[in-house]
Amino acid sequence: MRNIIIVSDFGKFYTLQMMGKILSICENVRINTIKVENYSIISAAFIIYQLSKFFNNTIFICVVDPYVGTKRKSVIIEKDKNFFIGPNNGIFSMIKSKKVIEIDEKKFNASKTFHGRDIFAVIAGKILNGENIENFGKKKTKIKKINLKNKILYIDNFGNIITGIKKINAKYKDKLRIKINEKEINAIYVKTFSDEKENFIVYKGSSGFLEIGKFMDNAAKILNVNIGDKVKIYKE
Amino acid sequence: MRNIIIVSDFGKFYTLQMMGKILSICENVRINTIKVENYSIISAAFIIYQLSKFFNNTIFICVVDPYVGTKRKSVIIEKDKNFFIGPNNGIFSMIKSKKVIEIDEKKFNASKTFHGRDIFAVIAGKILNGENIENFGKKKTKIKKINLKNKILYIDNFGNIITGIKKINAKYKDKLRIKINEKEINAIYVKTFSDEKENFIVYKGSSGFLEIGKFMDNAAKILNVNIGDKVKIYKE
Amino acid sequence: MRNIIIVSDFGKFYTLQMMGKILSICENVRINTIKVENYSIISAAFIIYQLSKFFNNTIFICVVDPYVGTKRKSVIIEKDKNFFIGPNNGIFSMIKSKKVIEIDEKKFNASKTFHGRDIFAVIAGKILNGENIENFGKKKTKIKKINLKNKILYIDNFGNIITGIKKINAKYKDKLRIKINEKEINAIYVKTFSDEKENFIVYKGSSGFLEIGKFMDNAAKILNVNIGDKVKIYKE
Repeated sequence: MRNIIIVSDFGKFYTLQMMGKILSICENVRINTIKVENYSIISAAFIIYQLSKFFNNTIFICVVDPYVGTKRKSVIIEKDKNFFIGPNNGIFSMIKSKKVIEIDEKKFNASKTFHGRDIFAVIAGKILNGENIENFGKKKTKIKKINLKNKILYIDNFGNIITGIKKINAKYKDKLRIKINEKEINAIYVKTFSDEKENFIVYKGSSGFLEIGKFMDNAAKILNVNIGDKVKIYKE
Repeated sequence: MRNIIIVSDFGKFYTLQMMGKILSICENVRINTIKVENYSIISAAFIIYQLSKFFNNTIFICVVDPYVGTKRKSVIIEKDKNFFIGPNNGIFSMIKSKKVIEIDEKKFNASKTFHGRDIFAVIAGKILNGENIENFGKKKTKIKKINLKNKILYIDNFGNIITGIKKINAKYKDKLRIKINEKEINAIYVKTFSDEKENFIVYKGSSGFLEIGKFMDNAAKILNVNIGDKVKIYKE
Repeated sequence: MRNIIIVSDFGKFYTLQMMGKILSICENVRINTIKVENYSIISAAFIIYQLSKFFNNTIFICVVDPYVGTKRKSVIIEKDKNFFIGPNNGIFSMIKSKKVIEIDEKKFNASKTFHGRDIFAVIAGKILNGENIENFGKKKTKIKKINLKNKILYIDNFGNIITGIKKINAKYKDKLRIKINEKEINAIYVKTFSDEKENFIVYKGSSGFLEIGKFMDNAAKILNVNIGDKVKIYKE
């Protein structure tokens, strides 16, 4: 069975309407949803990238879209066996592909405020039914990218801070310095959470990026940081 | 595959027990859940109505039920190809149908506090298996209705306020006055969120009702309003 | 179709990665998730127990695991037709079974911080495919138990407090005394929520344990109590 994953900043009330629309077009699909922080294009970009590593034959419908209903354009991206549908606002910054279609919105009878349901869900259902994505608009080769390096990409529900930094030249228990916004703090380089219980920790996270945490505590709250903030990690 | 949607004011701990019960009776079903604000019969009534437009062959089990285990009665409603099961407390105010069964609770070995699991989920499983709803109680023609006009029906996770008002005689960018509770505010009539970034906006929402919002801000929090509050929108 | 239920203290970002991993091994499965309070082994232990009464042919993957990546061991438990996979930290305190396998983590190419995805999800997928659990480690007969009697096991989203106490020798409307932490309060023994609207209530909950609540109010917040707190209920 193919999968659809709806990555959006809105709640079940809206995602269930999208699900109903999809199922009215194609029944044989497994649909899951994940909510990101309201308006957070950066965390959506990161989540889409990370989840796409674990799913094949999957359509990602991505809706963080404050400019819905205006001149902003939407796209469909094909990569390997996955498709990505959503506004071209940076949300697909981490998806590398040159198979891009710019959606022709005039082909759809859409409300002004909910393209997720009235356009993207309809396209997803039709892709499931075998329709070619070139039917939905014209080819394009570039999508909008936003710079994610040295930024906070995501904060998980424990307050662990996932950064856009891939690696650091450090060994187990090395002392590190972290600069976030105007703040500077100390941290210890570790392998897992409970390796260090007093100080902030830096470790290679399960997404392949460096993360900043604190054992059984909420690093993001203590440091008062947000997704998108600039971050630098270096050895003293 | 048929669908079940559980609309309730309780969390996964309870909906998963309902799901286990349903699956023990009939396996071939897709089950989704949506949580509404605790005790909010009005928002549940609205959500049930709005979702029922997008789902066919679906059983809605609706449990916002502070008077569970008392003399309050429960009903099964059939409408087109959908069924609705839940307490007769106004939760089905927006469902127009005359096929109503009042559930005979004595037919079930139920706990006093969780009819969602012990009665409604059992009925849903049996309907999936083809059982006639007349087996579960006696016919009735009326259900309890609560007045939803000129009220706030729902507040979404952005703080957009969905009202029970269907239309207003206004044009794009017209100035409007809104009266909520004792407060009066100005607003601009627009087509979508980003059409106006300073003032409150009123627009025809994706549910077909007028909504009150503020671009990338939380209108409901700023105005300090709740579901059920009275609202009036008019041209100056 | 078989079921997997993921009981964890982390959000969808992590459970969806687990889901992707499982589906890459075995497609024919229904997967559901439930989030517990961060680090709350007690509430996870209770939820696993309560849900296992309603699900058959189900694999519970249970991840409340602050010591992931250290010497703490993980287990697979078989009971009737269900399997339980997770850290041996007390999370399975309410599951009575002697079919236990201690997982040999060296068999897996795992990250240090996400065994839920890199070990437990892989095992679950392989169990679905018919693999014998003895392939994943060595037999064991005991699992770690934590004492749950006279403790708060769970607080639901209404603030109802589920205790580890099975019964009390009381009749409808009897006056009771409750001792939680250092506080003592009065309560009325009832059958369901709306039987008593002023005082705290005690009733036999839908899980089979005594619960403490207050009609359309949040007992846990008013009493300022947490999961794991000691509780005693007795007749005056």
